[in-house]
Amino acid sequence: MKISINQINPIIGDFEHNLSLVSEAVRKASLSGCDLAVFPELTLMGYPPKDLLEKPAFIKRNLEYLEKISKESLSIGIICGFVDINKSEKGKPLINGVAFLQNGKIIYTGGKKLLPSYDVFDETRYFEPAEHSLYFVLNGIRIGVTICEDIWNVGDIENLHRYSVDPVEELAQKGIDILINISASPYTIKKPSLRMKVLEKIASKYGLPIIYCNQVGGNDDLVFDGSSMVVDKTGRPVLRGNEFHADTLMWESDADYQSLPAPWTEEEKSIINCLTLGTRDYVTKCGFKKVLVGLSGGLDSSLVAYIAMKALGPENVTGISMPSPYTSELSKKCAKVLAKNLGIHFDEIPIADIFDSYKTALSPAFKGLKENETEENLQARIRGSLLMAMSNKFNALLLTTGNKSETATGYCTLYGDMCGALAVISDVPKTICYRVAAFINREKEIIPQEIIDRPPSAELRPNQTDQDSLPPYDMLDQLIEAIVEKNLSFEEIIEQGYDPAITKDTFRRIVINEYKRRQASPGLKVTSKAFGYGRRYPIARRGEFF
Amino acid sequence: MKISINQINPIIGDFEHNLSLVSEAVRKASLSGCDLAVFPELTLMGYPPKDLLEKPAFIKRNLEYLEKISKESLSIGIICGFVDINKSEKGKPLINGVAFLQNGKIIYTGGKKLLPSYDVFDETRYFEPAEHSLYFVLNGIRIGVTICEDIWNVGDIENLHRYSVDPVEELAQKGIDILINISASPYTIKKPSLRMKVLEKIASKYGLPIIYCNQVGGNDDLVFDGSSMVVDKTGRPVLRGNEFHADTLMWESDADYQSLPAPWTEEEKSIINCLTLGTRDYVTKCGFKKVLVGLSGGLDSSLVAYIAMKALGPENVTGISMPSPYTSELSKKCAKVLAKNLGIHFDEIPIADIFDSYKTALSPAFKGLKENETEENLQARIRGSLLMAMSNKFNALLLTTGNKSETATGYCTLYGDMCGALAVISDVPKTICYRVAAFINREKEIIPQEIIDRPPSAELRPNQTDQDSLPPYDMLDQLIEAIVEKNLSFEEIIEQGYDPAITKDTFRRIVINEYKRRQASPGLKVTSKAFGYGRRYPIARRGEFF
Repeated sequence: MKISINQINPIIGDFEHNLSLVSEAVRKASLSGCDLAVFPELTLMGYPPKDLLEKPAFIKRNLEYLEKISKESLSIGIICGFVDINKSEKGKPLINGVAFLQNGKIIYTGGKKLLPSYDVFDETRYFEPAEHSLYFVLNGIRIGVTICEDIWNVGDIENLHRYSVDPVEELAQKGIDILINISASPYTIKKPSLRMKVLEKIASKYGLPIIYCNQVGGNDDLVFDGSSMVVDKTGRPVLRGNEFHADTLMWESDADYQSLPAPWTEEEKSIINCLTLGTRDYVTKCGFKKVLVGLSGGLDSSLVAYIAMKALGPENVTGISMPSPYTSELSKKCAKVLAKNLGIHFDEIPIADIFDSYKTALSPAFKGLKENETEENLQARIRGSLLMAMSNKFNALLLTTGNKSETATGYCTLYGDMCGALAVISDVPKTICYRVAAFINREKEIIPQEIIDRPPSAELRPNQTDQDSLPPYDMLDQLIEAIVEKNLSFEEIIEQGYDPAITKDTFRRIVINEYKRRQASPGLKVTSKAFGYGRRYPIARRGEFF
Repeated sequence: MKISINQINPIIGDFEHNLSLVSEAVRKASLSGCDLAVFPELTLMGYPPKDLLEKPAFIKRNLEYLEKISKESLSIGIICGFVDINKSEKGKPLINGVAFLQNGKIIYTGGKKLLPSYDVFDETRYFEPAEHSLYFVLNGIRIGVTICEDIWNVGDIENLHRYSVDPVEELAQKGIDILINISASPYTIKKPSLRMKVLEKIASKYGLPIIYCNQVGGNDDLVFDGSSMVVDKTGRPVLRGNEFHADTLMWESDADYQSLPAPWTEEEKSIINCLTLGTRDYVTKCGFKKVLVGLSGGLDSSLVAYIAMKALGPENVTGISMPSPYTSELSKKCAKVLAKNLGIHFDEIPIADIFDSYKTALSPAFKGLKENETEENLQARIRGSLLMAMSNKFNALLLTTGNKSETATGYCTLYGDMCGALAVISDVPKTICYRVAAFINREKEIIPQEIIDRPPSAELRPNQTDQDSLPPYDMLDQLIEAIVEKNLSFEEIIEQGYDPAITKDTFRRIVINEYKRRQASPGLKVTSKAFGYGRRYPIARRGEFF
């Protein structure tokens, strides 16, 4: 049997566009003599549709499009994700479903039994667990189809969730020859190796080849990496789809394959590709072509400008430097050289006169009071307003440049440098920003080395550096990981040898700055716990820091 | 038996503070000769704790505080909500639990069987359904304790969720004399009558008196109204706790009570009280005393200033007028008179010179281009930056003044009039704002009548009115309700006789402005579907409008 595995990049809610992607892939698979074409979870609506699932008309349209695609299954079988109706009178009204289409009809359906409800996943909000997985026999071969989380109940792998049902075990009991998993599994730094572990474990436990078909593309904060795979019945990976690009794999069940070497991609490269796809898809799926980046001459904005250039082409990126009297000559120079190296447009708008006009307007109210953080924030907000004015006038999305270390500690100005449609690196800790910058420069200096070497500064007062307010970034990032990703307590962290005062202050900063993050733009997720949709904290709270 | 029903106002995560509230109530109940003191859901941590539940140290602390409060149960029984550990190896690690404390010990525990996962509720993210409800016998009286959602599976009431288990039925089968429900049920306009319907139905079906103990207080976007109740076994309400204030009810199981008259409170009054409590608690639980409101001389900012005055006292409120050349004399006058009527501080900061300085700075970039919405947004952003400067300098939280009609249609400027810590009326449609304003003025003109009578305008260009861009508010608000609250489709709305072009444009506006709302501050929920935490939509999407 020959199977095509299609990692498509759908647009959420755009049934017509997504149907065209599926049709095209089905045609190609058919021409290549495939017996079956496989597509990712919720194929025609894209994942995650979120509360669109609460719109009855949206569900109805999804069923109409499943009918449409079934008409294309005349010479080939199709496995297509869709949203089914829960026919029982109890429980959530929908099923995260999958259909086997053949001879122009919907032949069998099944659904997802394990519904993730953690981090960015809210599936129990909409779906009831399916009563059965999709199972069918094609050309004498017995095929079982699971959906994403269904294969993640494998036990003894760290941090996996605990379910009382194991859909893989159930299918294996029933007797299958091939296990298929259709997924919409977003990228995080550790995900590729974790996914491999799960597939290896299942294949070798049951002696089954596994086809893993994953969605690709950026949808708001989530970037789906594709990286579809086939592992043979010993658990060795034999085919692998492109990472962060739409792709098709063709697998023949009776052919011999060599095992692929691992690891596949350097971590820094994956992060760059993730951010690039996430940025490109957010901008274009929102209907824009052009972006703006405020260039400070520092590392973060340089990285974001680089990603934007890769994502959209240098002709669609404008870097804007907005110097104040506190901006060093080096910063101005670095911003210019970076823009030149990247080949992007460059503009400079000084802010001193605007800053003065605010100070004049506020002088009656501020009479007798010293300058303090108010005036620092004001500069950041002037820059935010200028960038938004450029964004409005030239129909270009503004990209935000804060990193995860800043976002965690609130070392940023709400309505200032936090302005923007997408926070490209808000889930990338500063220490990883440095690693990524070094990777970008590995063959040729693209980001001026001075930008990487100089001490980070917000330049909102004379001779300011980040480390006036924050602990060294390597320590800070470890603390943020311990608190935000690992949910360790103050006591547990101290036991590892960290300074109690610094640890306490880091807890405090993370807790009290929730209000800023609540108003942040979506940020591309790359770690196991990003701020935003997958991390939900109260703002008005008190007592001990947790 | 004498029972005290305590609707306390906890601070999320502040175990020490919440313990003191419980201790005090237990002492009073004990002195009054009560046999039992009842407290709301998740008593000692407050509801909703959200992802704090993912911190093992937070769960541990909760168990320690349950032990502490158990020591106070020497002369009285206590019913206390807490988070229990799920002892099974499968499923979510926690139980939304309740304990019966007596003789200084934890005697019995039980938990919540129906876990809401819709709108603002995410309980399946953390909790496994409890295996059994709390049941115990006290002085020969058999008592069953349910938690919030547990009583909401009563069937044939519109829009309730469908569960396959009915904890009330199970307790009734077992045989109980009193049903207790401990809740954390947030206020919405229709909630009081819905709650009453549920309690009436259960009491009359099973012939049981019901004690309903609900949390009170504002926690971010949610305002819990308290409104605890006792209904007798025929379903008549016999006791009712204060609405939007901490309160204690004392009920004697063998006393005779008269039925309370209904309805209890006018809708406008409840809305004002809801917004007042929500504002006061957000400001004070965040550790602030003072607030700022930008006063435009229009209805929305006037309403918010009134609420702020009620919530925090006029001495803690400053209204700031920021006129531009487009601001009418009437607006300036209205803002001043309103501030005087409310007795709040008033300040005026003109923006013309700042606006000019931006235009000068941007003139090279904008050369040859006409003024458009860019310059309108810029004025709003100057005002936002000025208000934030005042907020920073004087340590006063800024309140945002946008209503639900604007928020839905994006008739507001991100980082401009959307600046602020709390959106007081962002879930109040404009038509309800008018009703509330009339209610405020019913005895005396507090909001100048001219503010209510004049056509609404953003005054960002000469002679602008809202209705240049938006349909009349009564029609718009009906469309927003149909789309946002009822999830009706375009076709269904047209069938009701609405204009197709206006309906389509309203759909379009709601869909394309998701990006603005994603960066909005928390807004106090008063309708069945508020923007924010309980409404989750993708931003980057395309295709047909749903």
